[in-house]
Amino acid sequence: MVSTEDVDIYRVAGIDEAGSGDITFVSNRKYVSHIKTTQASAIILGEDIPPIDLPTLRTDDPYLAFARALEIFFTPLRPEIGIHPTAVIAEGVQVPPDASIGAYAVIGKGCTIGSGVAIYPHVVLYPGVSVGDNCLLHSHVIVREDCALGNRVILQNGVVVGSDGFGFAPTKDGGFYKICQTGRVMIEDDVEVGSNTTIDRAAVGDTIIRRGAKLDNLVQIGHGAQVGQDCVLAAQVGLAGSTRLGKGVWVGGQVGFAGHLEVGDKAIITAQSGTSHDIPPGAVMSGSPAFDNSAWLRSTAVFAKLPDMVRKLRALEKEIAELKNLSRDAK
Amino acid sequence: MVSTEDVDIYRVAGIDEAGSGDITFVSNRKYVSHIKTTQASAIILGEDIPPIDLPTLRTDDPYLAFARALEIFFTPLRPEIGIHPTAVIAEGVQVPPDASIGAYAVIGKGCTIGSGVAIYPHVVLYPGVSVGDNCLLHSHVIVREDCALGNRVILQNGVVVGSDGFGFAPTKDGGFYKICQTGRVMIEDDVEVGSNTTIDRAAVGDTIIRRGAKLDNLVQIGHGAQVGQDCVLAAQVGLAGSTRLGKGVWVGGQVGFAGHLEVGDKAIITAQSGTSHDIPPGAVMSGSPAFDNSAWLRSTAVFAKLPDMVRKLRALEKEIAELKNLSRDAK
Amino acid sequence: MVSTEDVDIYRVAGIDEAGSGDITFVSNRKYVSHIKTTQASAIILGEDIPPIDLPTLRTDDPYLAFARALEIFFTPLRPEIGIHPTAVIAEGVQVPPDASIGAYAVIGKGCTIGSGVAIYPHVVLYPGVSVGDNCLLHSHVIVREDCALGNRVILQNGVVVGSDGFGFAPTKDGGFYKICQTGRVMIEDDVEVGSNTTIDRAAVGDTIIRRGAKLDNLVQIGHGAQVGQDCVLAAQVGLAGSTRLGKGVWVGGQVGFAGHLEVGDKAIITAQSGTSHDIPPGAVMSGSPAFDNSAWLRSTAVFAKLPDMVRKLRALEKEIAELKNLSRDAK
Repeated sequence: MVSTEDVDIYRVAGIDEAGSGDITFVSNRKYVSHIKTTQASAIILGEDIPPIDLPTLRTDDPYLAFARALEIFFTPLRPEIGIHPTAVIAEGVQVPPDASIGAYAVIGKGCTIGSGVAIYPHVVLYPGVSVGDNCLLHSHVIVREDCALGNRVILQNGVVVGSDGFGFAPTKDGGFYKICQTGRVMIEDDVEVGSNTTIDRAAVGDTIIRRGAKLDNLVQIGHGAQVGQDCVLAAQVGLAGSTRLGKGVWVGGQVGFAGHLEVGDKAIITAQSGTSHDIPPGAVMSGSPAFDNSAWLRSTAVFAKLPDMVRKLRALEKEIAELKNLSRDAK
Repeated sequence: MVSTEDVDIYRVAGIDEAGSGDITFVSNRKYVSHIKTTQASAIILGEDIPPIDLPTLRTDDPYLAFARALEIFFTPLRPEIGIHPTAVIAEGVQVPPDASIGAYAVIGKGCTIGSGVAIYPHVVLYPGVSVGDNCLLHSHVIVREDCALGNRVILQNGVVVGSDGFGFAPTKDGGFYKICQTGRVMIEDDVEVGSNTTIDRAAVGDTIIRRGAKLDNLVQIGHGAQVGQDCVLAAQVGLAGSTRLGKGVWVGGQVGFAGHLEVGDKAIITAQSGTSHDIPPGAVMSGSPAFDNSAWLRSTAVFAKLPDMVRKLRALEKEIAELKNLSRDAK
Repeated sequence: MVSTEDVDIYRVAGIDEAGSGDITFVSNRKYVSHIKTTQASAIILGEDIPPIDLPTLRTDDPYLAFARALEIFFTPLRPEIGIHPTAVIAEGVQVPPDASIGAYAVIGKGCTIGSGVAIYPHVVLYPGVSVGDNCLLHSHVIVREDCALGNRVILQNGVVVGSDGFGFAPTKDGGFYKICQTGRVMIEDDVEVGSNTTIDRAAVGDTIIRRGAKLDNLVQIGHGAQVGQDCVLAAQVGLAGSTRLGKGVWVGGQVGFAGHLEVGDKAIITAQSGTSHDIPPGAVMSGSPAFDNSAWLRSTAVFAKLPDMVRKLRALEKEIAELKNLSRDAK
């Protein structure tokens, strides 16, 4: 429901930066108070915000409406269709006519490239890589031998898919014997992976990022781990080997998971937490080691007052000692 | 004030490695005791260190004097002036005659390159990037479309500037709708960014690294965040989206900031801390969740003795139970 | 000791994925219960597991036996011997006839390349780099000027060796003066480094990774740090400048070390811990700040129950107040 005022919009902008001709939005409660001072010409608001004196687009999902508004005004960068003359493409690899292969890309033997794929300069595909339709691989992405990407996968710059898992057998002399990492990494449809994130292959079996999962920058996915459908992993999260996240798990920044864990569907693990235990479905966990978020919040509140507790405890000890003396005297 | 002894110096070296012909320095108190055993031929010392039996350069800033001494003996690597024949430079891009463009660099349409710029091999500039004078971009740096670097910016290897922010609107089926990231990253003069650090662009508005800020390796700067002038961010720090650091903020390694926070000028956040709250100017904060550093130090001291506290509490409970029995008996 | 049944094995697989024709193994106790349900045709087991109804290879080191079994069935990828025509190799650099230099590799002046070296596409060696025999450098590895790799060093994709250390002298105006980083990084024999890990050079002196050490992905090694022989560093660990790890130190994921520390031989630091103090040999440390692991486990157990402690303390205070009243009344 757009208000009736006649207003021309030329741009989408943040609430503090917006000026005349801009439409802005509020989806994070933190910014509701900024509505009064915004210079925007129009605003996208949730149904729950009281009416204001600005042309308003009402929606039950202002963030999604903002996303769509952005697309009206923005033409995303697309590399030119065709194969750059400097790309090194192994014999026998078929590149669809609507794909784009950038300068100095290197595509190994036996790779398959889907329709509408955009491969930016300096991407390296090792032999046997399969890239589904409409994937977008930014500069300096590397996909190692035999790994597979589904359709519409987006890999931001510097992502490494399929580097060797961290697998070494300790030897009797205190050293290590490298274990061949023969598995693959499988990335399903609609996954996006943030820049410089690393996803390792395993000794045996596949490392899997399931459909729709979103991984932020500098995330580490260990050998044989599985990230469930529609999971969200914020930046700098680390998943050790063989750990499996269920569907729709949300993981805050810098969280760490030990290896061989099961994390249930829709669990939430807040930023900087760490766990070496399984997490049940739907649990909200915090802390390192992590436990129930609301209990953790109470514990952290006490933690800040621990010196007070020590003082109180000492005072009690004194008082009890006095009481004991009194009761001894009383005898 | 150099001592009067006649001594030839050929090299600058650390206090433990230095030998005959070397000058060394002490700026970290931890190494004062090493002065006695150093084999150096001369030493740079602060005014506060007692005289010793070595030719001594006295200064109120031994670390800076050491830095300048290093420059006397060291010729930093500079790539050859000119454009390597393998560089792919879009039509219309002007490269100043004193700039250096390395092998296999790729420079997109509409980029501007300042005077004295050194671009090492395998750097990729997407279209519309602006690089100020005397910038130094090491191999495998990527600067994405429309981002801008000021003058004298140094990007170490593998830095990603301007990858897409982690912005997705949740949809009703549990999936996510990717939000176009239409903003830019602006890096002001004299900033240095460590290797494999990632700095994301935002949906709207700019991500800004202000003048003189120093970011170490593997740091994550989220979409729309701002790092203030002369901030120092140690390795593996993560700043979530829209968080703003004031001027001169010092951030220890592996610290995490939630999104949409304001951190005041000259705040200090010690290593591995994390916060989801604003931080006032000048505050020194520690812990996850972070609070005042000196209070946190006291709390952590108690934390290590928590089992003792439990024992004491139990002992008190027993004693009180006994006292209650006594007082009941006394009635 | 192989059981006497006549069985053909074609593949090595994980215990849950294995089927007919596969050999599997159990080395992690967590998977012993999976033995009953595995579909494998044979299994590698430790001496301590009770006999089961499957052809069994008994060994005192099932993990190592598994590693060797893998090698029987797996042919690791090896790039073609020879120099790709697009590689840019500085004049005077000798490439042994059994080495492999991939597409778009750039090798600077004065580099030395050992026998049997495999350099994948897009590797950049700055001038003066020395690469020992049989090293394996994956795509997008960068080794900066004058750094040296021993023999059989494996660098996974995107590793940066020798980027500038994070060294700046504060100036009186609140800014920073960059300190030349004139040192080198030395990586000894049999080291493996995980993808996108960064290892910085120092202002003076060498950063050293000693023989046989294994570093996982996204690890940060600060300027002048030393990692001892056969150390194991899990993903996302950060070592600040000048910190030295002894021999055989095991470091869990996301651990942080402050600068200028000494960590003794065979110390173990568990995941997400952090320390700004030296660690004695053989210590097992946890927490941030870290202390003895078993004490830390007890403290964390209490931490989760802190609100209970507060309640108990309050109850005691009440009871003592009552007792005091009683004893006053008694007088």
